[in-house]
Amino acid sequence: MTGIRALLFDVFGTLVDWRTSVAREAEAVLAPLGHALDWPAFADDWRARYQPAMEAVRCGLEPYVALDELHRRNLDAVLASRGIELDEARCRHLNLAWHRLDAWPDVGTGLAALRESFLLAPCSNGNIALMVALARRNGWHWDAILGAEPARAYKPQPLVYLHAVAALGLTPAETLMVAAHAADLAAAGALGLRTAFLARAAEYGRPNPADQPDFPVDFHVDSLPALAAQLRAGG
Amino acid sequence: MTGIRALLFDVFGTLVDWRTSVAREAEAVLAPLGHALDWPAFADDWRARYQPAMEAVRCGLEPYVALDELHRRNLDAVLASRGIELDEARCRHLNLAWHRLDAWPDVGTGLAALRESFLLAPCSNGNIALMVALARRNGWHWDAILGAEPARAYKPQPLVYLHAVAALGLTPAETLMVAAHAADLAAAGALGLRTAFLARAAEYGRPNPADQPDFPVDFHVDSLPALAAQLRAGG
Repeated sequence: MTGIRALLFDVFGTLVDWRTSVAREAEAVLAPLGHALDWPAFADDWRARYQPAMEAVRCGLEPYVALDELHRRNLDAVLASRGIELDEARCRHLNLAWHRLDAWPDVGTGLAALRESFLLAPCSNGNIALMVALARRNGWHWDAILGAEPARAYKPQPLVYLHAVAALGLTPAETLMVAAHAADLAAAGALGLRTAFLARAAEYGRPNPADQPDFPVDFHVDSLPALAAQLRAGG
Repeated sequence: MTGIRALLFDVFGTLVDWRTSVAREAEAVLAPLGHALDWPAFADDWRARYQPAMEAVRCGLEPYVALDELHRRNLDAVLASRGIELDEARCRHLNLAWHRLDAWPDVGTGLAALRESFLLAPCSNGNIALMVALARRNGWHWDAILGAEPARAYKPQPLVYLHAVAALGLTPAETLMVAAHAADLAAAGALGLRTAFLARAAEYGRPNPADQPDFPVDFHVDSLPALAAQLRAGG
């Protein structure tokens, strides 16, 4: 028996293929206007500005602001860097590309299986409206939407993990953090949460060694059904 | 077309029959210990201390504290007033009676029908863990758990409604507050939310005229399927 009662999930990269989805959305908006870009590189550029944008909140320079807003600032910068001018309505639509991300193929069945035995919630830096949209698009059933917005902080700040655990009325040891990124699991594990590394080799279109944990994790899998099977087997 | 995109729900009394459920739970814990009480009166007494307990938070005397904790303080007072001594484990179990409330019979099918067309979230003074437990017990599928705990305030404080609307990325006019209590709808309506009065004549075991709105509401129904039908018809 593992004693685990709830699973918390990183979302970008762990549950959804942001790179392919954002590239598709950017092409759908910009190609009809005559722009011919390397669409995956456009997605990579937008995503590369994600961590730096959150740092102002993490270090206290700026109060919490939702990821939709940070994404918009970063989109404006990515477009400007390419000399692309876009009207406000198209900017808003393209910014919500992050609400239209597709899940990795194993996620739907995996979450459904895990939900039979555990409480499930995202613990993402994405804001609530974004998480709600991804759940609707991909047919997920969360017990609650937890993470950055309810905690008003950004991972890997400890408050985000501890807020999610407390909101479910649990202890860290009763809670399993599932992520495809070592830094996320290191932060959760340091607070006493259990950890599951879910390898997503295709996230960046190439392997990213920095995502591999070089420390012990409780589970190491390459799909959610595999995690469900290991949890059924008792760890 | 109503322009409504999301429904927010009061829960205690509107979706669940707290009085019958709490009476049953109190009897299950206390009767085997030899206590013979008027169980609905026990539930009424516990519930009567609910609004006063939140006032300390509302008026700023105390920072936000979850309803589970307020329920516990009130339970201790109800037991003391009856001269009942109860060990800590039984107190904790009885306090979570509010996690084991049963829905009114129309709620399951009503929410499922409404979810086909709208985002759905509770906007209750109950904390997240309590809302999660009620959803699991009664088979509800919320898009997010909103209300007092995410807003760190208690209805009818305006922040609770406005936080829920903003978390969904919507405007007040796109959001319909559903409640069996006039005061809840008055507060939501004053902020620009749409309002639906859902009559629950059996909530207190007798009619409560103070719950009836004496002001215009957008919808006035006596079941959730009836609300779904009115919304389908365009208001």
